[in-house]
Amino acid sequence: MQEKPLILVTNDDGITAPGIRALIKTMNAIGDVVVVAPDKAQSGMGHAITMDTVLTCNPITIDDGPQLEYTCSGTPADCVKMAINEVLNRKPDLCVSGINHGANSSINVIYSGTMGAAIEAGIEGVPAIGFSLLDYKWDADFEASEEYVKKIVLNALLEGIPEGVVLNVNIPDFKNHEIKGIKICRQANGSWKEKFDKRTSPFGKEYYWLSGEFVCKDKEQDTDIYALENGYVSVVPVQFDLTAHHMIQKLNAWEL
Amino acid sequence: MQEKPLILVTNDDGITAPGIRALIKTMNAIGDVVVVAPDKAQSGMGHAITMDTVLTCNPITIDDGPQLEYTCSGTPADCVKMAINEVLNRKPDLCVSGINHGANSSINVIYSGTMGAAIEAGIEGVPAIGFSLLDYKWDADFEASEEYVKKIVLNALLEGIPEGVVLNVNIPDFKNHEIKGIKICRQANGSWKEKFDKRTSPFGKEYYWLSGEFVCKDKEQDTDIYALENGYVSVVPVQFDLTAHHMIQKLNAWEL
Repeated sequence: MQEKPLILVTNDDGITAPGIRALIKTMNAIGDVVVVAPDKAQSGMGHAITMDTVLTCNPITIDDGPQLEYTCSGTPADCVKMAINEVLNRKPDLCVSGINHGANSSINVIYSGTMGAAIEAGIEGVPAIGFSLLDYKWDADFEASEEYVKKIVLNALLEGIPEGVVLNVNIPDFKNHEIKGIKICRQANGSWKEKFDKRTSPFGKEYYWLSGEFVCKDKEQDTDIYALENGYVSVVPVQFDLTAHHMIQKLNAWEL
Repeated sequence: MQEKPLILVTNDDGITAPGIRALIKTMNAIGDVVVVAPDKAQSGMGHAITMDTVLTCNPITIDDGPQLEYTCSGTPADCVKMAINEVLNRKPDLCVSGINHGANSSINVIYSGTMGAAIEAGIEGVPAIGFSLLDYKWDADFEASEEYVKKIVLNALLEGIPEGVVLNVNIPDFKNHEIKGIKICRQANGSWKEKFDKRTSPFGKEYYWLSGEFVCKDKEQDTDIYALENGYVSVVPVQFDLTAHHMIQKLNAWEL
């Protein structure tokens, strides 16, 4: 590539989150960077888009890096739509989302705003990667992530990511020398066992906090969960054709 | 089945929407019905869940039907989690979501709160079906839908829906005798060409409405879009293992 690639950066933890600041810094060394990211935390927004109210999108300067930045009132998927259709004057060569504070492995790809943004870019025909670090803390250490983010992004720019696919990358919360490498995986078969924490407000009304425990039923060694538990960065290719093609024949036997 | 099946009903247009009222009526003829649905419209919420605030869930009576009803402050996916883990004392035999006011064919399965709820039920191990009518209007006519909803639900209860799959059903906006039948389909390859409608507030600030036009690049005859355009009810089996398995070998050739 002669020209520097144009890289769109977004996330779901909000534009000031340390995770996206680390990702911007790494991307500045690779391409021309434009950031369009939510003005507040949007965790758990999945692929939500804003249909019932208006959106704002305004330039902002957060640090002295060379990137251009915009802060948007919408969801991560909104930010990507806004960036590609309104902010940028050409289609970006790559969209990176993250680095998320917390895991987006297994079924969490579905709840994840980080991956919602990456998938939205994929739908718009832009190669896209979501990055997540397995540390929920705001002051998580993103240093060890840099090498892996760089390696995966450079490969994606060189090799291309085929239409209809985006990458879901999760990075274990280890020091650099403790990470064993990168594994291409499938999404582990796991889900949340919910626990609703029921409380009473000062005014006598009952309310709930949604919480729970992640349960992985899948003990095979080719999953993202297995890779992460064993010290590897996991890369899962994710598609947005949700058709369960193997079921079509079976459904044709129904009496419809 | 000796006992009447326990059917969970939800939607994304809110508990008072005519679409869910029609669905409840049809389900009352088939099983014991419990409704846990959003207290307000939640269109475009996809698979969003509520992580940053609390949820309420309260009994409500809306009509004189035999169903039990609860109104929940969360997203459609929250409603399903709440129903299965907090409201119901046994796992439902089926979860139906809808009937949505408007299409959820092709890529819209990803933005759809209706399908977010159905997919959440699937993740929780409950057979699930999302229903949508191709008419956005609040006073849409759901009469023609009834026969097809019933037929598909009875087949699902009889045959079962395998783990890992839920059904996405779209119904054309035709009179009953004009609907040609039911077709099992794959999700058409289409997406939205966004148009941001830029306006200025009375206070001089710029804001946007997200709008756009759906573009279907996919001209094959086995898609949901083709079925709907030709007067058929479309049934797409949807999976929530998003792994693009065909890409794993290719990614293993990257220099990682």
